[in-house]
Amino acid sequence: MTTPEAREEAVLEAVNQRRKLVNEAIPEALPIQRPERLYEASRYLLDAGGKRLRPTVLLTTAEALADVEPLSTDYREFPTLDGRSNSPAADDGADQTPETIDAMAAAVSVEVIQSFTLIHDDIMDDDDLRRGVPAVHREYDLETAILAGDTLYSKAFEIMLETGTTSDRAVDALDVLATTCTKICEGQALDVDFEQREDVSPEEYLDMVEQKTAVLYAASACLPAILQGADQETIDALYGYGLDIGRAFQIHDDVLDLTVPSEELGKQRGSDLVEEKQTLITVHARDQGIELEDLVDTEDVERVTESEIDDAVAELERVGSIEYANDRARELVEQGKDRLEVLPDNEARELLCDIGDYLIERGY
Amino acid sequence: MTTPEAREEAVLEAVNQRRKLVNEAIPEALPIQRPERLYEASRYLLDAGGKRLRPTVLLTTAEALADVEPLSTDYREFPTLDGRSNSPAADDGADQTPETIDAMAAAVSVEVIQSFTLIHDDIMDDDDLRRGVPAVHREYDLETAILAGDTLYSKAFEIMLETGTTSDRAVDALDVLATTCTKICEGQALDVDFEQREDVSPEEYLDMVEQKTAVLYAASACLPAILQGADQETIDALYGYGLDIGRAFQIHDDVLDLTVPSEELGKQRGSDLVEEKQTLITVHARDQGIELEDLVDTEDVERVTESEIDDAVAELERVGSIEYANDRARELVEQGKDRLEVLPDNEARELLCDIGDYLIERGY
Repeated sequence: MTTPEAREEAVLEAVNQRRKLVNEAIPEALPIQRPERLYEASRYLLDAGGKRLRPTVLLTTAEALADVEPLSTDYREFPTLDGRSNSPAADDGADQTPETIDAMAAAVSVEVIQSFTLIHDDIMDDDDLRRGVPAVHREYDLETAILAGDTLYSKAFEIMLETGTTSDRAVDALDVLATTCTKICEGQALDVDFEQREDVSPEEYLDMVEQKTAVLYAASACLPAILQGADQETIDALYGYGLDIGRAFQIHDDVLDLTVPSEELGKQRGSDLVEEKQTLITVHARDQGIELEDLVDTEDVERVTESEIDDAVAELERVGSIEYANDRARELVEQGKDRLEVLPDNEARELLCDIGDYLIERGY
Repeated sequence: MTTPEAREEAVLEAVNQRRKLVNEAIPEALPIQRPERLYEASRYLLDAGGKRLRPTVLLTTAEALADVEPLSTDYREFPTLDGRSNSPAADDGADQTPETIDAMAAAVSVEVIQSFTLIHDDIMDDDDLRRGVPAVHREYDLETAILAGDTLYSKAFEIMLETGTTSDRAVDALDVLATTCTKICEGQALDVDFEQREDVSPEEYLDMVEQKTAVLYAASACLPAILQGADQETIDALYGYGLDIGRAFQIHDDVLDLTVPSEELGKQRGSDLVEEKQTLITVHARDQGIELEDLVDTEDVERVTESEIDDAVAELERVGSIEYANDRARELVEQGKDRLEVLPDNEARELLCDIGDYLIERGY
């Protein structure tokens, strides 16, 4: 029996191995070309780092579906499910089905969408730092940052068109990509809307997180199934897995904002509380009679003290809000893992389970 | 023989008739839904007006290709070219070809892209007014305007997926849409870049205009050919027509900025000169030894006088720059019209020629 530590280490190694491959693929998909400043700005955040969690989910799901050993198969020439007895495409015959697809193109496309949303989010929140470097609108300017995001947006669609799958499946994949982007925008708008409201319920909060964050995990998990030609039940189950672990990921992020020391977090611990940002934790706390604005008096992240944050976190612990958030995240991950039973029982499927666990156990 | 005035009136009527239909289709494609504020902001500029020139080009091209009388056929159930002896799809057979497509969906998609670029452009240029109403970031706020543009961006892809064409053609159409958006971003970045340069050549300027403005006309003209199943030669010729009339459109816009009274223009006449914005006119004038910064001394659009603008325009006329721009626009439109010979000789093709003329003869 493997220990939790050994499993986390294995996940981190799996993520790192795929990250290296994704990092090689990004400049191929997005070379610096004329106008150079635009493409440099478009690449700036992508090149600054990132764990590539979504591409990792996508590539690992492709491996689980194809029932190949993790990292044994070139992602650029990745087997489809056609020709298998249980493949719905086997008796479709309307379209020439290719034997392989470029799963890496899909993985890069998803990461490019993620990067576009971060660039525009940083403008909207007027955040100065991201991944330890200045936000794109700080390093360049507002105009260039808006355009860099817009360029990544259409490039993601162009890249998704490069998988070499059938036209039918490409259309379905582009549909998922487009509706995912729309939902991300809707989720972001709901998040802004919630700032004005004091009656957001935990379920409303989770709905918002689903749209703002989880849909891109859901897309990452179901896209290989679409591109490789899986049946609808598998596609739906994988989409559900992504939604579940994506929501859990965001809840855990909100917990980390309160519990990880500022130096590890790369920003002030408890900044969400200072900025009175609603999270599942604060929404739960309000239901316990806690006033969000009373938790931290200081309204400036630069001036808040660690002891103020300590007191606020102690109060949130006392009313059970942090435990509540942890419990909800755990439930969602367990639900997501259950959905993976549609996949063949293999090492890659195990890894997808472990990725779910990692998302709510990671320390930063 | 019809007079130019009669022809212009016929074009305006044709544009108006299609505009009404497009205006009915927009709320159907983009209903105000939750989160309402986001969708209201997304619709704000679309609802404020606009000639719908690009949708008109698209719908009229569809009519010319199908060889039907203008406005005789429901755009929602518009005939493809399949089954005709000269259709490449006739012997393809790989895909179930539908008898009709929803050409209006494609027309709305293109207008939605146009609206997204205007919303983001107004943020980038910090413009206050658009179509006689406040820019979206003024009427709402920066955050909402960025998100509204981003929402329209993905919605345009979703809407383009609703034409009911074959998957093969849908993939090609989405490819055109994505590469068009990328080029628009590149063109906008080049435009910004040119502001820092004093050695932009007329050809470089026209290249920039091609990317920033003309590609969306090109997409509008070639998309029906793709969706209806025309051959590649026809698709390419129509793309060329769109590029030509689109560049001419932008050149004429720059001429209008200098020659139309402010009250008709809806903004200060000569504002491009005051802001030292490069146009084909000023690029040509510099080649004649005119310093752009010497043309108008006042640097504030609010404070410039009509007589200052009059003097600058007289100077530009003296060195032949306005005539040069008019000549280039005329050449481009004639070249574009010649490309339409790939189309059947019918009333809709005539109208596409007249639309080309209208784009460089319109007074505002």
